[in-house]
Amino acid sequence: MPAAPASQTLSRGIRILEILADGPLSIDEVAARLDVHRSIAYRLLRTLEDHRLVARNASGLAALGPRMAALAAGVAHDLQAEALPELTAVANEFALTAFLAVLDGDEVITLTSVEPRHTVANVAQRPGTRHPVTAGAPGKAILSQLADAEWPDVSAALRAEVAEARARGYATSHDEVIPNLHSIAVPLSLRGRRPAALAVVHVASQHPDAEIATRLQESATAIREALGG
Amino acid sequence: MPAAPASQTLSRGIRILEILADGPLSIDEVAARLDVHRSIAYRLLRTLEDHRLVARNASGLAALGPRMAALAAGVAHDLQAEALPELTAVANEFALTAFLAVLDGDEVITLTSVEPRHTVANVAQRPGTRHPVTAGAPGKAILSQLADAEWPDVSAALRAEVAEARARGYATSHDEVIPNLHSIAVPLSLRGRRPAALAVVHVASQHPDAEIATRLQESATAIREALGG
Repeated sequence: MPAAPASQTLSRGIRILEILADGPLSIDEVAARLDVHRSIAYRLLRTLEDHRLVARNASGLAALGPRMAALAAGVAHDLQAEALPELTAVANEFALTAFLAVLDGDEVITLTSVEPRHTVANVAQRPGTRHPVTAGAPGKAILSQLADAEWPDVSAALRAEVAEARARGYATSHDEVIPNLHSIAVPLSLRGRRPAALAVVHVASQHPDAEIATRLQESATAIREALGG
Repeated sequence: MPAAPASQTLSRGIRILEILADGPLSIDEVAARLDVHRSIAYRLLRTLEDHRLVARNASGLAALGPRMAALAAGVAHDLQAEALPELTAVANEFALTAFLAVLDGDEVITLTSVEPRHTVANVAQRPGTRHPVTAGAPGKAILSQLADAEWPDVSAALRAEVAEARARGYATSHDEVIPNLHSIAVPLSLRGRRPAALAVVHVASQHPDAEIATRLQESATAIREALGG
């Protein structure tokens, strides 16, 4: 297929959504961030408001509207639906935050996350969190599923670590994405879908890594079977 | 502010996201649904792909990309973050699906939903679910927060029912949005934000409505206090 030039108007509209994901802004602030005239920003915002992706808040600022949540529910919704009860079970059994991450370009993105009940404090891992695939346990669990041609440029040390994770069946990380945090991840490989991982993250846990990994592998198997392999 | 004409290009791009929320499609199918030439659909899709909101799946079809989830995480994220542990606690205490719904135009939209653990079967209430504000317990709990001028055109019977719900502190519905389903909702009124509701939905529960409503009211109070009123 021949390369087509991107649509500047559509691209600017999407940029507004990206900017507003960080918090509400005035029209003037949106125009300044986009580096366009106020009238252009206004027209784009009005179009986004027509589609209810943007709504004014009580202070008159433009903010992402709840309709965005409806669109996002369409992202791999069968995968999210199967993963949610498994993540909930893991989170509560180990009192750790459990999450589903998928490959997105050369980044890992958190799609669904469940925090445990009845804990004094736990680590949050919000949906939408992103980091390079070359860092963190979910990144390594995802790299372990990639064919050679799909690999980004990585160090020999990381390549060896991923080979070890593949052989062992799970990956770990400490102090990589966020200081002091420890993460354990297992690959979730589904036919016809991007590589994914099930993971937990914590500061300290009384459970050995291998025990948690075994439980995550059971969840991965259950999800894979529910989705037909 | 003067009315500006909406941007057709941006509007078409958003339409593609709305269409793909129902499932992956080929470029030709997207073009047919939009009623535009294939070259226009292709250019818009390419722009959405550049922003990673759309990605090709293994069959080459266009599908919503995980980046959509990152954008949606920016929708009222502090509200979602405060509501999630409360919904989880309610869902597990009563073995019922618990959710947070907000007003979106003249519809109620589910922002966050938690299904209970350890149940044989439970009702799902997926984020993004929408129905008219004039139906269902969350709709009535939200209507009970609106000033007279904000009300849609409703029947005298519904107006009386909402008045009763306001006096009682919670709303119920049966057989309204989905046949056989029973729902209980309490208002969640937050300064400077759109009216919201905390609700549960079930086919049958051994707990009386008032007991569930009292628990939901405790959650609403906790969320309101966490968000500063």
